[in-house]
Amino acid sequence: MKKFINDPDNVVREALAGMAAAHPELRVDLDEQIIVRADAPRPGKVGIVSGGGSGHEPLHGGFVGPGMLDAACPGEIFTSPVPDQILAATRAVDGGAGVVHIVKNYTGDVMNFELAAEDAETEVESVLVDDDVAVDGSTWTAGRRGTGATLLVEKIAGALAEEGAPLAAVAAVARDVNARSASFAIALTAGTTPAAGKPGFDLPEDEIEVGVGIHGEPGRAREKLRPARELAARIVEPVLAAKPLEPGSEVIVLVNGLGGTPLLELYVMFDEISRLLAAAGVRIARSLVGNYVTSLDMAGMSLTVCRVDDELLRLWDAPVRTAGLRWGA
Amino acid sequence: MKKFINDPDNVVREALAGMAAAHPELRVDLDEQIIVRADAPRPGKVGIVSGGGSGHEPLHGGFVGPGMLDAACPGEIFTSPVPDQILAATRAVDGGAGVVHIVKNYTGDVMNFELAAEDAETEVESVLVDDDVAVDGSTWTAGRRGTGATLLVEKIAGALAEEGAPLAAVAAVARDVNARSASFAIALTAGTTPAAGKPGFDLPEDEIEVGVGIHGEPGRAREKLRPARELAARIVEPVLAAKPLEPGSEVIVLVNGLGGTPLLELYVMFDEISRLLAAAGVRIARSLVGNYVTSLDMAGMSLTVCRVDDELLRLWDAPVRTAGLRWGA
Repeated sequence: MKKFINDPDNVVREALAGMAAAHPELRVDLDEQIIVRADAPRPGKVGIVSGGGSGHEPLHGGFVGPGMLDAACPGEIFTSPVPDQILAATRAVDGGAGVVHIVKNYTGDVMNFELAAEDAETEVESVLVDDDVAVDGSTWTAGRRGTGATLLVEKIAGALAEEGAPLAAVAAVARDVNARSASFAIALTAGTTPAAGKPGFDLPEDEIEVGVGIHGEPGRAREKLRPARELAARIVEPVLAAKPLEPGSEVIVLVNGLGGTPLLELYVMFDEISRLLAAAGVRIARSLVGNYVTSLDMAGMSLTVCRVDDELLRLWDAPVRTAGLRWGA
Repeated sequence: MKKFINDPDNVVREALAGMAAAHPELRVDLDEQIIVRADAPRPGKVGIVSGGGSGHEPLHGGFVGPGMLDAACPGEIFTSPVPDQILAATRAVDGGAGVVHIVKNYTGDVMNFELAAEDAETEVESVLVDDDVAVDGSTWTAGRRGTGATLLVEKIAGALAEEGAPLAAVAAVARDVNARSASFAIALTAGTTPAAGKPGFDLPEDEIEVGVGIHGEPGRAREKLRPARELAARIVEPVLAAKPLEPGSEVIVLVNGLGGTPLLELYVMFDEISRLLAAAGVRIARSLVGNYVTSLDMAGMSLTVCRVDDELLRLWDAPVRTAGLRWGA
């Protein structure tokens, strides 16, 4: 294993110390292991907390800031945050208007966020993200997994909360974005966790994992590597099958690298995907290409498509100021 | 080789088509192979053109937009753009106030930008970037290589040009930023070009290339892999030796991934580097952590340190709106 680390058991804590040093606009509590925007809690503003295992950066810590999350609670690598950590984040952002928990659908995450919500002194609305249409249940979940759409849910709910909307409305828009989204991923190689020291699975030089999860958990099938244009079709087909789109629909498209794939290749894939969506009569209203919801150093990519309306686009375009996503501010 | 490509010979063109589809705010000319901001040329504004081999994305095409570059001309992978391409970019951004060429110091780039400047119908100021203090000459250069500081030169010169400053002033600030900057890189693995189909060099599982270039060309030494804190010292030492900093100096720090290194590890390195700079009495005024000047899927990182004053910080903070770097707009 070749990594820029000191001690495999201390990677998350040291990375948090690095975030604290790099981003003075954030409050990083190394003991509670939470990242909080500096001006939280804001009286009267709905707080938004997300979290999950580390190894998916910039998700979630990189999305803390005005217009997106109020706090993130990163667990150890590919490990759910503990209830105390989630509770500390919830308290830190409680401005008296309630708190939304954005929870990716993994068994451990769901359980620990529930425990924290029960102990919270404020009203909590939990929003489950389960956009990955590759499999219905996996080694990590009951039901679909939460992957790329988490970014869209956090961005759009964050924008509405920033405007001062009430708890029910923020939770409702978050659920709506999840319901409108579908994702699907392909892995060319596995990522390596510092603790394991070797790739999470082995793939022969000419094979890929289709419908892979963000922890390297298996997907739909192991198939032969083939040209980008065929892989794009392999990804677009199940996404459109799971959430059919009328011709004329407007969408936000996220072409997301899983950590080890160069931007050059993501743009090749975007080219192919945009042709396929155009052929289906779908209009790409906004897009994002880059490494946003990753799986350590996995070579691979995911597609997320979210059907939008004018109001969702307005919230998408609203200013955001985080380490990992920033515009208009 | 496992990559999201169709044809190794067509990767750059297809990625450009993807950029065109993803960024309607850019004009991408697939025949000339140039990327131009949509409102160019702007009458009376100094145009800024950069370019170089592809494989370093988001550099340079991802830095085209208001507040940074007016155009980029990407060559084939790790191959200089041709003079005609550079000339087309120069013409596309010529608003009558002259054009600055920002050229990374590689023999082919320098020669081709010179040829284009000779044929340009406008006044051209060429600015050489040679910030990599690892080696004085390499397989690709006479003198030092241009690496991470290119981002800082492009951002700061771009901000001054956006304000309407004249050609001489824009070129002067670009040269000043380069003179104030030093960079140094470490590779854990080599990147793989689509044409070669295999890593550019072999490194044993316990060895690293210290002082590596962004094309995988050799650096100072091949050494043993060791903990992040020792690697940070190995990088900071030559940077501070090459451009000594008085205690109390303010700097911009770029901790840059070379394409295949997770953000988590870059933040671990930022933590270590910030401690070493603090111990040297240096104050980090601004920082950037992420994959900005890459070498395909190389696992590795580079450090760039640029000593700044209030005026350079003001220009750094000015709004920028590009695919790869965006704030305040």
